[in-house]
Amino acid sequence: MPKQLFGVVGLGVMGRNIALNVERNGMPVAVYNRTYEKSVEFLNKEAKGKNVVASKTLNDFVQSLEQPRRILLMVQAGAAVDAMVQSLKPLLSPGDIIIDGGNSLFTDTERRAKELEASGTGIKFFGMGISGGEEGALWGPSLMPGGDPDSYQHLKPILEKIAAKTDDGPCVTYIGKGGSGHFVKMTHNGIEYGDMQLIAEAYDLLKNVGCLTNAQLKEVMLQWNESELKSFLIEVAAKVIDFPDPKGTGQPLVEQIRDVVGMKGTGTWTIKAALDLMVPVPTMAAAVDAREISALKLEREAASKQLTGPAPKKFTGDIKAFIEDVKAALYCSKICSYAQGMAMLAAANKAYTYGMHLDELVRIWKAGCIIRAIFLDDIKVALKQNPNLPNLLLAPKFKDAINTRLEAWRRVVATSIACGITSPAFSASLAYYDSYRRARLPGNLIQAQRDFFGAHTYERTDEPGKFIHTHWTPEMSAEGGGH
Amino acid sequence: MPKQLFGVVGLGVMGRNIALNVERNGMPVAVYNRTYEKSVEFLNKEAKGKNVVASKTLNDFVQSLEQPRRILLMVQAGAAVDAMVQSLKPLLSPGDIIIDGGNSLFTDTERRAKELEASGTGIKFFGMGISGGEEGALWGPSLMPGGDPDSYQHLKPILEKIAAKTDDGPCVTYIGKGGSGHFVKMTHNGIEYGDMQLIAEAYDLLKNVGCLTNAQLKEVMLQWNESELKSFLIEVAAKVIDFPDPKGTGQPLVEQIRDVVGMKGTGTWTIKAALDLMVPVPTMAAAVDAREISALKLEREAASKQLTGPAPKKFTGDIKAFIEDVKAALYCSKICSYAQGMAMLAAANKAYTYGMHLDELVRIWKAGCIIRAIFLDDIKVALKQNPNLPNLLLAPKFKDAINTRLEAWRRVVATSIACGITSPAFSASLAYYDSYRRARLPGNLIQAQRDFFGAHTYERTDEPGKFIHTHWTPEMSAEGGGH
Repeated sequence: MPKQLFGVVGLGVMGRNIALNVERNGMPVAVYNRTYEKSVEFLNKEAKGKNVVASKTLNDFVQSLEQPRRILLMVQAGAAVDAMVQSLKPLLSPGDIIIDGGNSLFTDTERRAKELEASGTGIKFFGMGISGGEEGALWGPSLMPGGDPDSYQHLKPILEKIAAKTDDGPCVTYIGKGGSGHFVKMTHNGIEYGDMQLIAEAYDLLKNVGCLTNAQLKEVMLQWNESELKSFLIEVAAKVIDFPDPKGTGQPLVEQIRDVVGMKGTGTWTIKAALDLMVPVPTMAAAVDAREISALKLEREAASKQLTGPAPKKFTGDIKAFIEDVKAALYCSKICSYAQGMAMLAAANKAYTYGMHLDELVRIWKAGCIIRAIFLDDIKVALKQNPNLPNLLLAPKFKDAINTRLEAWRRVVATSIACGITSPAFSASLAYYDSYRRARLPGNLIQAQRDFFGAHTYERTDEPGKFIHTHWTPEMSAEGGGH
Repeated sequence: MPKQLFGVVGLGVMGRNIALNVERNGMPVAVYNRTYEKSVEFLNKEAKGKNVVASKTLNDFVQSLEQPRRILLMVQAGAAVDAMVQSLKPLLSPGDIIIDGGNSLFTDTERRAKELEASGTGIKFFGMGISGGEEGALWGPSLMPGGDPDSYQHLKPILEKIAAKTDDGPCVTYIGKGGSGHFVKMTHNGIEYGDMQLIAEAYDLLKNVGCLTNAQLKEVMLQWNESELKSFLIEVAAKVIDFPDPKGTGQPLVEQIRDVVGMKGTGTWTIKAALDLMVPVPTMAAAVDAREISALKLEREAASKQLTGPAPKKFTGDIKAFIEDVKAALYCSKICSYAQGMAMLAAANKAYTYGMHLDELVRIWKAGCIIRAIFLDDIKVALKQNPNLPNLLLAPKFKDAINTRLEAWRRVVATSIACGITSPAFSASLAYYDSYRRARLPGNLIQAQRDFFGAHTYERTDEPGKFIHTHWTPEMSAEGGGH
């Protein structure tokens, strides 16, 4: 009996669709699911007539695969992954490859890879971020595989066939070592949080300051999607923003939706990972904060009756100019957000020696995933031109882009403050830009205070590298410590 | 031979000073240090003629203590604490108490308490935050002990004697169970980060927009220290801000200090702990970000030559009014920062069932620690009046305080944006206030998008609790997932 080329464990919708994608691309697939009935159902439905075999036992599944075996786990992130790795371990041979395709925390992936390497079994481990959801899984996702570099040759031909395609190649590349694949997927999600918050703030200002109708908002989004902002998320905004309420209220559905935003954790992972790397990511952090504040719905409803703000003003200015300003603020903030994301990836590359090529990461986001946008082309070019670019803000293209929009961006944030229509991510982005471009920030006062109360020492501007403690008062005595 | 009442392990400056504090208050002390010479030196110097005994072996040290033994560890946070607990375990008796007085991560404290409890030895464990540095340790720190409630009776009389004193009692209270003592100390430090950043932003604006001299800045700080801002950190700012350069440049020393701010990690711990609790803490997070950006000194110097900003304008307005505005912005932002900190403590109380009394936590910060301020009195009163206050912003006193300062606060943030003199923590605080007081935020658009591409479902405003998925397009198919 001929063996199958690719194995999938876990037949949730993502697992089923990846299996079908592989098979459609001419490669025989083996599947395994804890509940065998689900496999049978799959064989009788979506996989009917296709080159897919299913096994009742894990051992039969493993035996049905060609060596080196390629086994993609599409099980729930967490304990289920560990359990499946343990079950597979005694059944596999040296050189076989286990790929975790779930949304695992990158440190878990790192740990699993190390454990398998230390086990002496010769089994290789990959953590692979998959973006694009159910449709992407079926027709072409963006794939972020990280793990053993030598084993990648056994995955490359298959992954390149099933990934989303662009004129710049398939949306997959070998990411790097250890947990890098899941680190990149996590960062992608953090950037996605940022993008969505920025679009929401633009919507908020245009609706509640500019007083645009949802039909007008749709027009704006459609126009923006023909500009430098062209992206999947702007396209989606255009599609949903004036969608009629199916309940027949005559109102746009979006206005009937509760403003409490769900989150599954990858956004907070991103902020925590950035803190570990000491990389400031204020735009993405503002997006996570905004989701947290959104959840305080009842508190906000109560507070709205007690806390004051500016009286709403009827917009009287040039609405076209205001729309252009908001567009500029959105674009500049987006540049800051991606600058933070790329800085985080560069820092991870150093700290965790992943060996990633940043321009390649951006290239594989150009299709298949949620943050796909023409904007990524400019980032790729900037990183290709200068792989050691300290910050995206310094790329000529982005420097110029911000330069011509800077006054507009400031006007928008000032308006949001004056009207009390918050734009936390716009403001945080501008603060990031203004902090990054200042050679001198007021941290000198903090250093003086820390030395005063905790003897933490400071450096002088004329003697960097030399740490000095001053007796600030006659009765000077060190107070504090550990801060 | 009479036994000693209190034991201290680790004779760094903090350990030595706590030991001397205990002894000065009439309680015999035993000390142990890994290197015995250090103990001998201590006995011959600071502890000369005092009721302090030192032992060469850990066993002799333990035997020198009255039961139940009270042993304060003042060793380095991390592995050294675990090692010392392991060494002490076989030597102690049921009911003896180990207190970790270092800057330990609260989850480590939680783990150690659980391990000791499970060990069946009957040894009790406390994690105790100590604030006030070397001077505080000697003359009266703020103490935050968390652990076994029944054992606290054996610590209470001693801790109350050595703690800082206020007209509101000694600065110590039983915090709560498990790692609560270190959780509270960590949050204290996060708040301290926020306070220092806010003062630095005020300084930056007054100096670089208002063009005040450092002598004038000192006057401002002295005046502020006679107002609602009266606090240790404003007092320190007044003391350092015009301190002459000892090198004789004729300039204020603070202007010769490099603007790279050190950090030891407790600030980032706070933000990560808040993320775990899903409590937004944007003011404190902006303070941590600012320290991270301060560290990018070389990048900032390079960027300052490439990235544009507004041309510096000579200040022409009413400088007295501007100073008043900045003071208002600082005070309002400070309220927001403490609101975030207290929200975080309330959430921890729920999530980790610490059983803390929030008003008591604020009371014990009124002396001995870095964030001591008259402001804490108002918070204590607010929390005493309403222990279930959802947010400090809703306390009548703070509501009124912000109400009368709101326009000034907005003016300051708008000025900072117009001038490109960043005030990230002022802005983040205002965004927090403006978000918290809005019954409706633009998260509805994010929910619509998430449902569009990931079938994540949404709630309607008229049917909260019911999760709905819409087919947004004729060709609708779910994309994305896991965000």
